[in-house]
Amino acid sequence: MNYSEMDTAYCSIGRTVDEIGESWILLIVREVTMGVRRFSDIQEHIGISRSVLAKRIDHLVAEGILESRVYRSEGHRRRNEYVLTEKGSALYTILIALRDYGDRYLAPPEGPSSFTLHKDCGAEVRAILVCDAGHVVNGSGEVEGVRGPGSKLLSAA
Amino acid sequence: MNYSEMDTAYCSIGRTVDEIGESWILLIVREVTMGVRRFSDIQEHIGISRSVLAKRIDHLVAEGILESRVYRSEGHRRRNEYVLTEKGSALYTILIALRDYGDRYLAPPEGPSSFTLHKDCGAEVRAILVCDAGHVVNGSGEVEGVRGPGSKLLSAA
Repeated sequence: MNYSEMDTAYCSIGRTVDEIGESWILLIVREVTMGVRRFSDIQEHIGISRSVLAKRIDHLVAEGILESRVYRSEGHRRRNEYVLTEKGSALYTILIALRDYGDRYLAPPEGPSSFTLHKDCGAEVRAILVCDAGHVVNGSGEVEGVRGPGSKLLSAA
Repeated sequence: MNYSEMDTAYCSIGRTVDEIGESWILLIVREVTMGVRRFSDIQEHIGISRSVLAKRIDHLVAEGILESRVYRSEGHRRRNEYVLTEKGSALYTILIALRDYGDRYLAPPEGPSSFTLHKDCGAEVRAILVCDAGHVVNGSGEVEGVRGPGSKLLSAA
């Protein structure tokens, strides 16, 4: 099958972009990943209105990416925080791939705003492509696409 | 420095989302990566209006992700196609990270619509996190963020 004969409108890339492509969604996930978990802290940190943040968090909870958790703060008032589900944690590779690209092509002249280091050894962390046989893959020229069980032909769409 | 004291509104993740987060942008890049390069072919393949596609392609050319190239078709009419720049090709790791996530969490019950295989050995290709010392990194629990030269404190923003 030729790639151009496939109906790719709903491939996995398209589905993921639909789920997380809306503005702010990935920045909210980044905050929670970095330990900023309370509504007001997230709001202050990324500079977003309460109503937009509430809407985006509702979406993330509905999609099973964030979970709301009640905890007691020091003053014993019951408060809410957000934590990543297992599905939400899996977005981390996407965040690092986006960051690598931004560091390389979009950083200000003085350099990136932060580095992500491996705790064990202190070396910088980045996203790379590998195959299941362990070879590093350098870009789309070294791959080929084959039809999977969920594919549809364009004419059958 | 504590993460929550940093002004992260314009970190590399935010910048990249600003550049490629708009709907259709990544699907257009996916098409060109897969060799679908002519305006009318891209339009037909992803089912997008001519005016929206023209606007998105203008954006991609302005950002230095796509380049327009003139070639002669079999009938010797001059035609235009789009190719990825080096910067555009670097988006491929992001595409595969998005695809991995979609395959795992958002694919239809029958399975993913396609597989990406390493040409050399036929094994499946995926995005993973590694550090520059060669260790595989399993998620955000194994990393720490440190301030880079382009960082700003929140109070200084």
